[in-house]
Amino acid sequence: MATSKEYAIGIDVGGTTTKFGIVNSKGEILDQDRIPTNEHENVEEFIDDLYAKLAPMIKKVGGNAAFAGIGMGAPNGNFYTGTIEYAPNLKWKGIIPIAELMEKTFGLPTKLTNDANAAAVGEFMYGCTKGVKNFITITLGTGVGSGIFIDGKILLGHDGFAGELGHTIIRPGGRMHKSTGMAGSLEAYASATGVRETAIEMLTEQPETESLLRNYTINELTSENVYECAMQGDNIANRIFEFTGQILGESLANFILFSSPEAIVLFGGLTKAGNLLLIPTRKYMEANLLPIFKNKVKLLFSELKEADAAILGASALVWDLEQ
Amino acid sequence: MATSKEYAIGIDVGGTTTKFGIVNSKGEILDQDRIPTNEHENVEEFIDDLYAKLAPMIKKVGGNAAFAGIGMGAPNGNFYTGTIEYAPNLKWKGIIPIAELMEKTFGLPTKLTNDANAAAVGEFMYGCTKGVKNFITITLGTGVGSGIFIDGKILLGHDGFAGELGHTIIRPGGRMHKSTGMAGSLEAYASATGVRETAIEMLTEQPETESLLRNYTINELTSENVYECAMQGDNIANRIFEFTGQILGESLANFILFSSPEAIVLFGGLTKAGNLLLIPTRKYMEANLLPIFKNKVKLLFSELKEADAAILGASALVWDLEQ
Repeated sequence: MATSKEYAIGIDVGGTTTKFGIVNSKGEILDQDRIPTNEHENVEEFIDDLYAKLAPMIKKVGGNAAFAGIGMGAPNGNFYTGTIEYAPNLKWKGIIPIAELMEKTFGLPTKLTNDANAAAVGEFMYGCTKGVKNFITITLGTGVGSGIFIDGKILLGHDGFAGELGHTIIRPGGRMHKSTGMAGSLEAYASATGVRETAIEMLTEQPETESLLRNYTINELTSENVYECAMQGDNIANRIFEFTGQILGESLANFILFSSPEAIVLFGGLTKAGNLLLIPTRKYMEANLLPIFKNKVKLLFSELKEADAAILGASALVWDLEQ
Repeated sequence: MATSKEYAIGIDVGGTTTKFGIVNSKGEILDQDRIPTNEHENVEEFIDDLYAKLAPMIKKVGGNAAFAGIGMGAPNGNFYTGTIEYAPNLKWKGIIPIAELMEKTFGLPTKLTNDANAAAVGEFMYGCTKGVKNFITITLGTGVGSGIFIDGKILLGHDGFAGELGHTIIRPGGRMHKSTGMAGSLEAYASATGVRETAIEMLTEQPETESLLRNYTINELTSENVYECAMQGDNIANRIFEFTGQILGESLANFILFSSPEAIVLFGGLTKAGNLLLIPTRKYMEANLLPIFKNKVKLLFSELKEADAAILGASALVWDLEQ
C-alpha cells in the first residue's frame, strides 16, 4: 500500500497549450498530456476538459486520497488570491478565480502562481539551481518571463505580482511593445518576437547587405530562421544575436544590482541558440557590473526539458503547500 | 535598576562624517555626536577616536552590560562578513574587517550593513513604513543609495551586496559616472551631483536662454542653487527637476516590476526639493507601469530627520541580532 498523498498534479496554462501531468515527490512525471487553452471561451469548459483528461490518470494511481493537491502556473496567476488577473494572452477576461473553480471540480487543494514563477520553483526543486537560495530565471519564449528566488523562496511582492522583469525598460523611448504599449522593454527585444523584429529592422535598414535571411518572406521570418542562418555564418543573423545578447546582458546586470543572485538561469525557446546568445549576453552582463559583482554570477541554461519544467514547477507548489 | 541590554549604539559611517549615538529600544536617541571620517588614514585610528567619544556616553547609562551591541552602516558594508569591501569614497582600501576590530576595542557584538540598508531598517522600525513588509528606500544624496525590504527583512542577496539600485543603467550609453566609469546609471542623474551636471548641460546647450542660474559660476552651482532658482520660477531650473524626476520615475517603475513593493520611500538631501521632485517622479513612475501596478505603490518622503535616521537604522541592526 502506497503512503497517502505521494502525488501532485502539475498544470502549466500557456496562451496556446495547457500541459499537465502526475508527478511524484521525487519530481518524476508519471503521466502527462495536453489540451489547447485558447479553444475554450469560458474557464468552466476549460476546467471540465482538464478534468476529463486527468480523472483517469488520478484514478490509475489510487484516486484523490493519493494526492497532496494541484499546482498551477498561468499568465498573471496570483499566488495570494488564486486568481488569474487580466491576462493579456488568454481568452478569459477580468479576474478568474481559477484555484477555487479547480478545487470545486477536482476536490483537491489548488495553488496558483504565474507561469514564470512556476518554472523558477521547478529549477529550485529539480533543476540546475537545485537548493540555490538566491537566483533568477528568465524565460525567453514568445515573451520574456521571470521568476526570482530570494533566500529559498519565490519572490511574490506585497500583492503577488513581483518578478515582471520582461517589462522593465532597457531602451527608454525604444521599440514599441505591441500589447503593453510600452517603449523599450526587455520583452520587445529579447523574445522570439523581438528577434524577428530585430531581423526585420536590420534587413530594412541595410538593404544592400547580402543575407540568407532575404530568402524568407517577411511572414516566414522567425527566430528559428535567424538561428539557422547564423549557424551558416550569415553576418546579419549573427549580429541579430549579438544585439539580442547585448540588450539581455545589460538587463541582467541591472537585475543583479537589485538582488545579487548566485545564478541566473535562462530558459525557453530562444536558448536553443546556445552560444550564439550566451556569449554576447555574458559579455554585456559582465561589462555592466560593478567590480563587487564581476565574475561571480553564474549564467546558465536550464537543463530541464521545457514541457517537463513547466509541469514540474507547477506541481512543486503543492509540496511547498505541504510545509 | 534598569533591565540589562536596553541600549544600542548606532553608527553611520559616511564618506565625510561619521555620526553615532546611544539609542534605546523605543528608537529614542539619548546622546549623539560626530567625528570626521576622512581624516583617519587607517581604520584603527578611526576606531580609537570613536571609542574616545563613545566610552563616556556608554559609561553614563551603565556601561557595556546595559548594551545589546553596536550597529553600523557604512558604504559597501557587508552584513554577512562584517567587512567594508573596496568602498570608493573611503580612505581605507581593500577589505576592512571593521566589525571584528570594533568588537575588540568596544567589547560589544557588532553588526554591519551598508549605509542605505541601515536607513531602510530605520524606516521599517521607526519611520513612515513602520511594519510595512515590502518597500524600497532610495537615498538621494551626493550619490544614490537603496535599501530593499522583502517580507519584513532587508534584502542582502547571496553575498550581502544586494540593493545597489543607484548603479542600475537607465540611459544606456548616457552620462558617464565619474567614479564607476559606467554610462547612464541612475546615480549619474538623480543625485545632488547629477542635478548639478544636468544644470551645466542645460545651461551650455541653451546659451541664449535666460536663467537665474547664470548668476553662479560653474564652481558655485549646486543642487541647492537649482532648487532656489526653481522656487523663484526660473524655467531652466524647473526643467532640471522635471528631467531628474523623469529619470528617477522611470527607474522606480523598473524596480516595482522587480519586487512589487507596497511603498517607495525617498530620503536624503535632494528630497528638500519637495514637490518640484515628487510630482514629476510620480508622473513618470506611473506612466511606465503595467496596469496591474498603476496607482498602487505609495511614493513617500521619509519623515525621519536625516542624521537621526542613519543612527536609528544602524542601531536597529542590533535588535534584529537579538531575535
